[in-house]
Amino acid sequence: AAGDPHAGKAVAGVCVACHGPAGISGNPEWPNLAGQKGPYLALQLRAFRDGGRQHPLMSPIAKGLSDADIDNLAAYFSGLKP
Amino acid sequence: AAGDPHAGKAVAGVCVACHGPAGISGNPEWPNLAGQKGPYLALQLRAFRDGGRQHPLMSPIAKGLSDADIDNLAAYFSGLKP
Repeated sequence: AAGDPHAGKAVAGVCVACHGPAGISGNPEWPNLAGQKGPYLALQLRAFRDGGRQHPLMSPIAKGLSDADIDNLAAYFSGLKP
Repeated sequence: AAGDPHAGKAVAGVCVACHGPAGISGNPEWPNLAGQKGPYLALQLRAFRDGGRQHPLMSPIAKGLSDADIDNLAAYFSGLKP
């Protein structure tokens, strides 16, 4: 489902801490999110939330996200200029 | 280890089939690779190869990659303009 980037920005505080305020991360081991495919981002957030993909930081963070949060975050970051 | 993008391009045939010749994928569920963080890309390829991350297409493809292939592919795609 297409998300709302403005609503996504409102819940992106925890994300930008690692992935950067413009979606370009400050650590070479953390992915840039700006301009990434929205559906791909949503798939990864759901995988981290539901256990299909594991990461010590992403898994607990994703657990707190609703489906709407996930679609809105995906819309927000995919809309940023890479 | 920093890879060689030219050597990476030489083994990127199977990758570009899905991720696109310029590293911008043609399917919204497959990630763009162009301009992504190199070390992150290498971590994901190693995770697919070694089982830390699973995907029906990526896992078998990554099994065939050497460490040099992985570092070279990461250098190649991270160097493409997003």
